[in-house]
Amino acid sequence: MKLVFLGTGGSYPSKERNLACVALKMMNGEVILFDCAEGTQRQMMFTSISFMQVKCILLSHFHGDHFLGLPGLVQTMYLNERKDPLDIYGPPKTVRRIEGLLGTGHFNPTFALRVHDLEGGQIVERDGYKIRATWANHGVPDMAYSVEEDTRPGKFDKPKALELGIPEGPLFGKLQRGETVTVKGEKFTPEMVMGPARKGRKVVYTGDTAPCDAVLELAQNADALIHDSTGGTDIEAKMNEWGHTSSRQAAEIAKKANVKLLFLTHISPRYREEDSKTLLDDAKAIFPQTYLAKDFYEHNIPYPE
Amino acid sequence: MKLVFLGTGGSYPSKERNLACVALKMMNGEVILFDCAEGTQRQMMFTSISFMQVKCILLSHFHGDHFLGLPGLVQTMYLNERKDPLDIYGPPKTVRRIEGLLGTGHFNPTFALRVHDLEGGQIVERDGYKIRATWANHGVPDMAYSVEEDTRPGKFDKPKALELGIPEGPLFGKLQRGETVTVKGEKFTPEMVMGPARKGRKVVYTGDTAPCDAVLELAQNADALIHDSTGGTDIEAKMNEWGHTSSRQAAEIAKKANVKLLFLTHISPRYREEDSKTLLDDAKAIFPQTYLAKDFYEHNIPYPE
Repeated sequence: MKLVFLGTGGSYPSKERNLACVALKMMNGEVILFDCAEGTQRQMMFTSISFMQVKCILLSHFHGDHFLGLPGLVQTMYLNERKDPLDIYGPPKTVRRIEGLLGTGHFNPTFALRVHDLEGGQIVERDGYKIRATWANHGVPDMAYSVEEDTRPGKFDKPKALELGIPEGPLFGKLQRGETVTVKGEKFTPEMVMGPARKGRKVVYTGDTAPCDAVLELAQNADALIHDSTGGTDIEAKMNEWGHTSSRQAAEIAKKANVKLLFLTHISPRYREEDSKTLLDDAKAIFPQTYLAKDFYEHNIPYPE
Repeated sequence: MKLVFLGTGGSYPSKERNLACVALKMMNGEVILFDCAEGTQRQMMFTSISFMQVKCILLSHFHGDHFLGLPGLVQTMYLNERKDPLDIYGPPKTVRRIEGLLGTGHFNPTFALRVHDLEGGQIVERDGYKIRATWANHGVPDMAYSVEEDTRPGKFDKPKALELGIPEGPLFGKLQRGETVTVKGEKFTPEMVMGPARKGRKVVYTGDTAPCDAVLELAQNADALIHDSTGGTDIEAKMNEWGHTSSRQAAEIAKKANVKLLFLTHISPRYREEDSKTLLDDAKAIFPQTYLAKDFYEHNIPYPE
């Protein structure tokens, strides 16, 4: 699992930061996008992410800096004759909004665009992972998401297998894939040689939000929390009023939620590169495993063990 | 008058080229945009163009690579509390399409967005210039535009003024501004000391189009022609079928229309930097005053004299 930050600015772009989009590359190569701001398709061209790998887009809300890259990305997929369906999830009325958006131009579909309205608390099961949606706190309908990998099989206990008399070779592979094998008339089940199932990883993306309990709950024990961090303590009260979070507050949430890594994003264009260091310092003082995201920054999410 | 190329690619972006947008900076500082593709607002940040100077946007048509930067640009103007109205012109149904586009998100207007549907042949008089719209040939409703500066006052004939007994000083300025002056009881009109009115400049933007007579006519004697030049002679027939023009054909049109400068743009992403040299060579063999536009390229349009 790898995070690739395609846009890390908020409200409007700057020379350094494009607007909201984070790609999550899954183990099978599939890419999930959190938001899809204007310019996303071109930002991808400067990273290892191909737009053809994108299988699923999770939209937090419909402020312009979060979704306006969608129609251009879809048109480029059409022009490249994509056949794979694409799933788009968002808050209620996403279906209607996307229909409206694509109705404004001449688009010629080559694949199925499957758009889904979600409700707060809804869970979507997908191949290899599940998505959980939660209401965030931003003045307009806005959702935070977690992506949780399915559990993986436990560790294969090779000494145990040899002790049971199973010969090293293709039978080991079968057991690891969950099959029962027979050796000299005796049956051996996977449970006999496999450790307990191992937890998958969990990544949480908040979209735009003021600090709120629902997001805190969603973030519990996440391996990576990508949090709204529009600004610093200098404008904290105002930001909360606008439905945003300061870097200091994001760090407090990360600590309370017991996450492993915190990524600050949606940085206001008022902060130049040198100022944004303060945002990071404020957060690290509370939660040391904090990163201030930059455009094109990539980060592997390690397994818990 | 200055051209600033904000995006020079066609269909979908590449690392080198963003999608269709050309800014035309007028003498009074006002900026006109020809098309407004995704990413336009950010491209501006790397040039001398400020989005607050944009007073007028001319949309050729509603393929995604020509208009999807509009809602983001408008939102950024809102966020910066713009008060000046903005005029948007396009082919029939532009009003409905822009309404639909802005209806897909939460936009909070701070200024008047005045959207206008045009018909082929329509002329719009604006302060200091006029816009002329013509049907181009692209399979969907698509317009080419000319922007023509108003005529300027003729040259002031200083020796003649002195000979008539008008003293050098503020009266010269009054005459140049079109006022009649009185010297020792005698009246002198501007016509007595000013040469014939001088023609303004004319810039033509074709949008996407196969070669066609209407565009050829619109381009007559233009000071600058910005022409669709999606590809080279290798795919000319196919391009014409798709409603595009080769660089060779664009040069032939420039020559027939007796323009002064030709700018090739809307270059297909199939051409890398080194290949695009062929497009330029093909055109220059026919029309030497040809430039192959690149992103951020700026060019002053000189007065005819």
